[in-house]
Amino acid sequence: MEPVRHSQTLDRVFHALADASRRGMVDRLAGGPASVTELARPLAMALPSVLKHLAVLEGAGIVLSEKAGRVRTYRMAPQALGAIEAWVAERKARLNRDFDRLEQYLAEQAGQPAAAKERP
Amino acid sequence: MEPVRHSQTLDRVFHALADASRRGMVDRLAGGPASVTELARPLAMALPSVLKHLAVLEGAGIVLSEKAGRVRTYRMAPQALGAIEAWVAERKARLNRDFDRLEQYLAEQAGQPAAAKERP
Repeated sequence: MEPVRHSQTLDRVFHALADASRRGMVDRLAGGPASVTELARPLAMALPSVLKHLAVLEGAGIVLSEKAGRVRTYRMAPQALGAIEAWVAERKARLNRDFDRLEQYLAEQAGQPAAAKERP
Repeated sequence: MEPVRHSQTLDRVFHALADASRRGMVDRLAGGPASVTELARPLAMALPSVLKHLAVLEGAGIVLSEKAGRVRTYRMAPQALGAIEAWVAERKARLNRDFDRLEQYLAEQAGQPAAAKERP
């Protein structure tokens, strides 16, 4: 079971990235900070929609913003994608252990040492 | 820009994982295949809801199922989490390059060689 707070974080992060426009903004910001205007420019989208998407990303802790005068600048949060990366890595490690066990079982059935096989 | 088909895949995968019950099922299946009954047992959830969640995971290509007699067994799909892993890794690599550039810039401003600094 996931701790409740971590679970809510994962809900928000996965939800935030389940949208191509928001992933496009992350793509842009992964290359460096950008103002709202710069983020809006390539998108066929009204400014309020852009701001709404940015609010979803900020609420998920993926991006941060700060305002200097009239310009609000967004940037990736430190460890922005860390929660997802850790979650995926943990499941993948367990999956690989499971495949290794299956491989070993099959090798034993075939009378071959498991170590001689390579995983693609 | 993401190719449309890949974009839809990412939408589905991220959406599928934006739910703690579905992540719980992935957790269970990362340890090995399981029947619907086994998957439903730890959940305080009616069977139709369990099946609905499993259909979302299967639609996203995260799990596969096959039926033998009356028992439907689910297992993780090969490369189930590969799309997300690749997506995150690519953004993280770009972010790190961005941080490296910033670090180098700051080091140059301070008159120190960038190589002497360590990223935490």
